[in-house]
Amino acid sequence: MAIEQLYSAHVNKLRAYREALSLLYWDLRTGAPKKGVDLRSETIGTLSAEEFALATSDSFGDMLAELEAKNEALDPVLRRSVEESRKEYDLSKKIPPEKFKEFVVLQAKAESVWEEAKEAADFSLFQPYLEKLVAMTKEMIGYWGEKNGSPYNTLLDQYEPGMTTEVLDEVFGALRSRIVELVRKISESADKPETAFLFGHFPKEAQRDFSYRILGQLGYDFEGGRLDETVHPFMTKINRQDIRVTTKYDEQDFRSAVFGTIHEAGHALYEQNLGAELAGMPVETGASMGIHESQSLFFENFIGRSDAFWKRNYRLLQETAPDLFADVAQKDYLRAINEAKPSLIRIEADELTYALHIMVRYELEKGLFNGDLEVKDLPQLWNDKYEEYLGIRPANDAEGVLQDVHWAGGSFGYFPSYALGYIYAAQFKNAMLQDLPNFEDLLEQGNIGPIREWLTEHVHRHGAMKKPLEILRDATGEGLNAEHLASYLEQKYTKIYQLN
Amino acid sequence: MAIEQLYSAHVNKLRAYREALSLLYWDLRTGAPKKGVDLRSETIGTLSAEEFALATSDSFGDMLAELEAKNEALDPVLRRSVEESRKEYDLSKKIPPEKFKEFVVLQAKAESVWEEAKEAADFSLFQPYLEKLVAMTKEMIGYWGEKNGSPYNTLLDQYEPGMTTEVLDEVFGALRSRIVELVRKISESADKPETAFLFGHFPKEAQRDFSYRILGQLGYDFEGGRLDETVHPFMTKINRQDIRVTTKYDEQDFRSAVFGTIHEAGHALYEQNLGAELAGMPVETGASMGIHESQSLFFENFIGRSDAFWKRNYRLLQETAPDLFADVAQKDYLRAINEAKPSLIRIEADELTYALHIMVRYELEKGLFNGDLEVKDLPQLWNDKYEEYLGIRPANDAEGVLQDVHWAGGSFGYFPSYALGYIYAAQFKNAMLQDLPNFEDLLEQGNIGPIREWLTEHVHRHGAMKKPLEILRDATGEGLNAEHLASYLEQKYTKIYQLN
Repeated sequence: MAIEQLYSAHVNKLRAYREALSLLYWDLRTGAPKKGVDLRSETIGTLSAEEFALATSDSFGDMLAELEAKNEALDPVLRRSVEESRKEYDLSKKIPPEKFKEFVVLQAKAESVWEEAKEAADFSLFQPYLEKLVAMTKEMIGYWGEKNGSPYNTLLDQYEPGMTTEVLDEVFGALRSRIVELVRKISESADKPETAFLFGHFPKEAQRDFSYRILGQLGYDFEGGRLDETVHPFMTKINRQDIRVTTKYDEQDFRSAVFGTIHEAGHALYEQNLGAELAGMPVETGASMGIHESQSLFFENFIGRSDAFWKRNYRLLQETAPDLFADVAQKDYLRAINEAKPSLIRIEADELTYALHIMVRYELEKGLFNGDLEVKDLPQLWNDKYEEYLGIRPANDAEGVLQDVHWAGGSFGYFPSYALGYIYAAQFKNAMLQDLPNFEDLLEQGNIGPIREWLTEHVHRHGAMKKPLEILRDATGEGLNAEHLASYLEQKYTKIYQLN
Repeated sequence: MAIEQLYSAHVNKLRAYREALSLLYWDLRTGAPKKGVDLRSETIGTLSAEEFALATSDSFGDMLAELEAKNEALDPVLRRSVEESRKEYDLSKKIPPEKFKEFVVLQAKAESVWEEAKEAADFSLFQPYLEKLVAMTKEMIGYWGEKNGSPYNTLLDQYEPGMTTEVLDEVFGALRSRIVELVRKISESADKPETAFLFGHFPKEAQRDFSYRILGQLGYDFEGGRLDETVHPFMTKINRQDIRVTTKYDEQDFRSAVFGTIHEAGHALYEQNLGAELAGMPVETGASMGIHESQSLFFENFIGRSDAFWKRNYRLLQETAPDLFADVAQKDYLRAINEAKPSLIRIEADELTYALHIMVRYELEKGLFNGDLEVKDLPQLWNDKYEEYLGIRPANDAEGVLQDVHWAGGSFGYFPSYALGYIYAAQFKNAMLQDLPNFEDLLEQGNIGPIREWLTEHVHRHGAMKKPLEILRDATGEGLNAEHLASYLEQKYTKIYQLN
């Protein structure tokens, strides 16, 4: 067999394992019976180990070396795929197997200790594990080799290829001062939205119907996916023709289902519209965490929280839940769903303050890996930064430094992607307006097609053929630029809160 | 590692693959989006091949040999597990790999040709493939070595360990003459049940509610399973704590959901009540196809179609579907669901005539493997036998010899298990009545516990620790005996049809 075919067969085998694993997880999170969970975890562990052995086999390494030797002769999809495979391969393979195993065991242990610590609102329980996780991650950076000039940049590059603290410091800095200023003005505004009517009883079945309607309107392909209920919503690719979304129906707060569904639809539309020429190859995936998040946030915020979208859909919502909305005017509803108010918990944050939560985490991570920040100092610094940026201070570690699982899982350098996604999204929106000045009319007509096609043309179809900043530049003519997000937020909240 | 631990680790790894494969199939049959099906089939193919390689590896063979050498020193569960593993191992391993592959390819091709042939109602399209399947199966019997004195007995033994044509000829022969006589009398009876009211519109949601209620009453454990909708209902073990059932909601014929659910519940209760000491071992499974079917048929017929069960549940059914049943007396309902009428299609057959469908297939299979029956003569013989046993003749091959997929899948010797299950079930029922003379009272009280516990004690908990005929003898004190089924049917239908 030619080397190209060997590579393709190996990649296909890995794909099969990943489909099985994705389905095992999806099932676990959407309705697997609870008694079967322990055995399911064992099954996932066993198949993950098998998949890992295949992904890091010496024979796969040999294939990659052989393909790299004929680099220029490869077609572009194969060439970029080999680059992606190499990156993944080295990430695992450069670490001595016993170190890797030690890290996996530590992660599992740390996650369970983190749960207990959060329960007890006591960081000191978790501290020794986090110290060990940071130390081991530093050790692994040593094995990987420093990328882009600093240890933390090595981590950033794993989630957001090419991203550096130099870029983030500048961009986040500029954005932060403008958001903080807006938050301050809003807190002083006398004209705050009424929101009580959002929290009436909204039956699950009705929320489900509404979610299906909206997914259809956004162009989600139900023949290549499905919608299910879960506790922490997610999108998952089972295979490239089977992209599933999930949502959560809270009968006392319908927003989690509606905005969650729209958010996951953004992720799903990315995966459903990858270029056909990428089929089956490692580049058949999103370009980065941040670019993926840009698509979900584009849909959630620029579509789902917009005036035009609700001009189209508010009547449907009223019909779906007349008890809640029959007597509420559309403009009051729109103000209510766009309320901005500093809060302590990231995953409950609103559109305006969300990025501030991310910045706190980013600065702390950077200090841990590039500076001399010590783990023991995190709770104090965390609380200080919340006070500085959001004007509120956690009363304990559970609503402070212990709120997210990411660090317990050894994921450092991941958080910035959330804010980057938002900045990218605003840049895409700005560029899109050049081509589709009738953006709002389209939303009001429920005609999402041209908007989705623009995103497919400039983002979706390329998969991982381009790096994130290449996608951004090709789509917008710019590098990373927070100006668009900042102005969008200023305009939006000035209007909503009648700021000066 | 000690050999026992090596074996256990290997068996656990196989179990993990099987959990993944079971879930991949379950998902495919309960709601996987249609566009993803081709890739899903590839995934199943890839993981099946991986699982097959593990199940037939030389190192696993070495483990089995080492364990067999210390046979007497092994604890009973391990000893029987090794026997089971050996049986499976040899079935695959004795066939040269290239033959095995050829057979798998032939199966896949034959199934798709069978579909076309059935569509066209033309056996001649399928004939060459069936000839090849029979020839290759005969060749494989040569590799396996003849068991119990004839080629067909070798096949029977794979589904029903120890079963032979000598036993079946006698038992089926005795049963057939009595069923045929009953069918004749019924056809002459002037007092036929009214059934039209069964086919009113019964909304899917209401059928689902009713199915959940009945599953609960039967003692199905929802914390270790779930109920989903499908086209061809089945029970599947995802893992031992996750035993799923499926059903089909036909809004014009609620019987498929109600009796299908009860049938699958019988299978599921078997799996949910296997002995804890079998956990994770190859003997943690049903004793045979026939014993499994005895449990599903026990529930479907001896419980689900009984007067006492509906004395308990008919009011609930009336409340669930008042449009259909409000004006129908319970005794008329009971007669209607117990209508017996010769029909051409096995899977639509009633309780009385079902076994005749099986006997036709059994005799033809026996002729193909032990006699000189040729594939080309099947359609004619099939039709003749239907005329002889059931008094009706298929108008074409689609409603005749082409109706079942089993032969296209190379499954010869499987059909008898369906009828055996029914015979076993009647024997269990007879023995149970000695211990639970108040059987009908229990059903009428909705108190299934003692009935289920009897089955668990005598059947479920043993898993594959005993051979089918051992289970039968230990539970009933008898060998295979169709007398109990025959008298049950005679009593039941004499009453329903007011026979002399």
